[in-house]
Amino acid sequence: MLVEVIASVNEARSDLFVNKTAIVIDVLRATSTMITALARGCSGVVPVETVHQAKSMMERDDLLGGERYGKKIAGFDFGNSPLEYRSDAVLGRKIILTTTNGTRAIQKAQKAAHVLAGAMINAELCAQTAVKFKRDVVILCSGTQNEFSLEDGLCAGLIIDELSKHCESPLLVNDFGTAMHLTYLQASHMIPETIMQCTNGKRLCKLGFREDVHYCAQSNIVPLVPVLRGETMQPFTC
Amino acid sequence: MLVEVIASVNEARSDLFVNKTAIVIDVLRATSTMITALARGCSGVVPVETVHQAKSMMERDDLLGGERYGKKIAGFDFGNSPLEYRSDAVLGRKIILTTTNGTRAIQKAQKAAHVLAGAMINAELCAQTAVKFKRDVVILCSGTQNEFSLEDGLCAGLIIDELSKHCESPLLVNDFGTAMHLTYLQASHMIPETIMQCTNGKRLCKLGFREDVHYCAQSNIVPLVPVLRGETMQPFTC
Repeated sequence: MLVEVIASVNEARSDLFVNKTAIVIDVLRATSTMITALARGCSGVVPVETVHQAKSMMERDDLLGGERYGKKIAGFDFGNSPLEYRSDAVLGRKIILTTTNGTRAIQKAQKAAHVLAGAMINAELCAQTAVKFKRDVVILCSGTQNEFSLEDGLCAGLIIDELSKHCESPLLVNDFGTAMHLTYLQASHMIPETIMQCTNGKRLCKLGFREDVHYCAQSNIVPLVPVLRGETMQPFTC
Repeated sequence: MLVEVIASVNEARSDLFVNKTAIVIDVLRATSTMITALARGCSGVVPVETVHQAKSMMERDDLLGGERYGKKIAGFDFGNSPLEYRSDAVLGRKIILTTTNGTRAIQKAQKAAHVLAGAMINAELCAQTAVKFKRDVVILCSGTQNEFSLEDGLCAGLIIDELSKHCESPLLVNDFGTAMHLTYLQASHMIPETIMQCTNGKRLCKLGFREDVHYCAQSNIVPLVPVLRGETMQPFTC
C-alpha cells in the first residue's frame, strides 16, 4: 500500500486523490468536531467552504456550525468546538459546517474514491477503515493558513503507525510521511503536552479553548469514522 | 532565538529571510558538495541557477560543476558528486556550480543578512556559526522538485538540536521545525540507514552514487561552513 502525506491544503492538488482513499486531518478542530458531532447522534455533517454557502444550503431543522479566526460565526448555532456538539442539541439533525482549513481540505480531497475524516480521537479506527478499502492512501494534513500544523502531522504519524499494524502488505510511505511517522514515534509518550505547546494549541488556549485542545489530543477515544457520501459526512458502517 | 524551518524551495518567499541568518540545506548533494570542495581547497563556489549562467560567468581557470537529473552536465568539469572534488583538481580554483534544487535555494535566501550552507557533514559547526551571528535563523530545506526530502529534514533537525545546545537563549521553533527536530531525535541512531532508504537515497544509489550517499549521511566530519560573500560561497572564518 502506497501512503502519501501532504503537509497542508496549499500543497494538495486534486489529481493526487484520484482512485485513492483520502484521510483528511484537522485535529484542531474541524475533523475532531465532525467525529464528535456524528458520535453524539447528528444525522450528517456537510462541510462547505464559505459562510454564504453554509447559509444558502440550510434547510428547516438543519444547524449551522463553524468558525473564522477560531471564533463562532455570528448567527450560527455552534462554533468549531467539539464539546459544544452535545447530544441534546444535535440528535437527528444535519449540521452544515464551515471552518478555515478543515472543510476546505475535504473539498480538495473530493476526487478520491473514499474520503474519511481522521483525528487523534479516532486514529486507529480510521486506519482500520482505510485498510478495508484496499486502495492507496493520501493523508491530507489541513494545516493552518496554508502552513503545516504539528498536531495534524502527529496524527498522520499515528495513522501510519496503525496502518502498518493493520495492513497485510508493507507500506510504501513518501518522505514527508516517513518524517511524520518518526515525529509521532518520538512524541508518542507526550502527545497532549506536545499539542498543547504547538502553535495552534497555544493559540486556542489563549482564545479560551484549553478544554478543546485537551479533548482533541486524546488518542482513539471515539469509535467512529466519518466518510463522505455525496456532500455529507456520515458514520462509516461496514 | 526564533528558528523557522521551510520544507522546500517552493515554499520559500524571499521576504522570510530579511535580517535573518539563512541556513540552506541540500544534503543530497549540493551543499555537501560545496562544503567538500571548499574543504579541499577551492577558492570559492559560485551557485547559479542555469547552465547558461554558469557558462557565461566562467573565466579563465574557473571550473564548472553541476547536475541535471542527478547526472553531470555535458562539457562540465564535475558533476554534483562531492567525492569528485579532489584537492589536486580544485586547489585554488573557483567553481561555478548549478544544481536542480540546492543552488536555487541559495538564490532564494539571498535577502538574508548571512547565508550559510549546511549539511549533515558540517551540521554542528554550522549551528555554532549561526549562533555567532546573533540573529533569528531560517533553515531552508532544498527538497527535490519542490517536494520535501527526508535527508534535508533530518539535517534541519540535527542543526536545531545543535542550536539548542549552543544558544544561550531558549529557541522558539515553528511547528515544522519542531517536527524535524522530533524526526531527527527518533532517527538519530540510524541516520545513514534512514538516508539510504529515503527517496533521494534510493534514486542516487540506482544512478550509481551509493558512495556519495554514504559520505553525505555522516555527521560533523568536515570542519568548514560555507558563507555567501557577494555571489560566492567561501569558508567562514571568525
